[in-house]
Amino acid sequence: MKTPDNWTEKNNALYRKIEFKNFSEAFAFMVRVAIEAERMNHHPVWTNVYNKLEIWLSTHDAGDVITEKDVELAEKINSLVLV
Amino acid sequence: MKTPDNWTEKNNALYRKIEFKNFSEAFAFMVRVAIEAERMNHHPVWTNVYNKLEIWLSTHDAGDVITEKDVELAEKINSLVLV
Amino acid sequence: MKTPDNWTEKNNALYRKIEFKNFSEAFAFMVRVAIEAERMNHHPVWTNVYNKLEIWLSTHDAGDVITEKDVELAEKINSLVLV
Amino acid sequence: MKTPDNWTEKNNALYRKIEFKNFSEAFAFMVRVAIEAERMNHHPVWTNVYNKLEIWLSTHDAGDVITEKDVELAEKINSLVLV
Repeated sequence: MKTPDNWTEKNNALYRKIEFKNFSEAFAFMVRVAIEAERMNHHPVWTNVYNKLEIWLSTHDAGDVITEKDVELAEKINSLVLV
Repeated sequence: MKTPDNWTEKNNALYRKIEFKNFSEAFAFMVRVAIEAERMNHHPVWTNVYNKLEIWLSTHDAGDVITEKDVELAEKINSLVLV
Repeated sequence: MKTPDNWTEKNNALYRKIEFKNFSEAFAFMVRVAIEAERMNHHPVWTNVYNKLEIWLSTHDAGDVITEKDVELAEKINSLVLV
Repeated sequence: MKTPDNWTEKNNALYRKIEFKNFSEAFAFMVRVAIEAERMNHHPVWTNVYNKLEIWLSTHDAGDVITEKDVELAEKINSLVLV
């Protein structure tokens, strides 16, 4: 399994930190991730403060390890950053 | 009062139509406008279908005509489109 | 096909109007509908102003008539109102 | 300064954990808090996973301690939980 660009492995989770211009831009991005997470029925652990967003992806049902579902969501999130 | 770029006057309201790539992008934009509208306590009439968003701005308290508040929100919305 | 509770047929679309306490409550509801619409890949025509939300559901691919997909989304929206 | 109901002091921050029925309900709540945070220009540290939301409030400009602004936002968040 290849770690997606801009993500690192950290304590059995894929991790990425993203900075935005401000809170409004960060939260609008979170809405897009929320829609995608719900569509995949696969939800991140994420922490936001103002313009910063940290995301951890792992698969609870597989014992909190990284699976293909995490890679898929990570790549989807990457595609939303690029937009 | 100058009509902001990309807006037209239509039945005593400022009007702008914006197209996005898809629903997710359109709705994330709506979140940013919603935050701004609530901050100004000045709310649009807006219609969305998939990637299309139509916005009408007028001031109810002034008798449903265009006021400086509408111009201000229109310009704020313009700045969010450019981001 | 049975029209879901609180919806009416109007110009070949299912139609429902919902009033909330304020804009914030209305928009939070819209987020939930947005998530559901994207999950079903079936999007409403909807108009919001302050605490009011009007929704029209029809199926573009079927020639803009009401189909089972519209009934399903209408019932899902009903379930979110009750929450 | 009185600690608002359901909040505790933890490392110089007000802290509250809220559980919802599911992700959609949790995220819709976050939208309401986001709108309020942006209106007050006072932003939480918050972590979400599925139906759980943890919020920490402190005032960066005052040296990361609890101030009246945090109490005000905590009480506003309480009022949104009750709705």
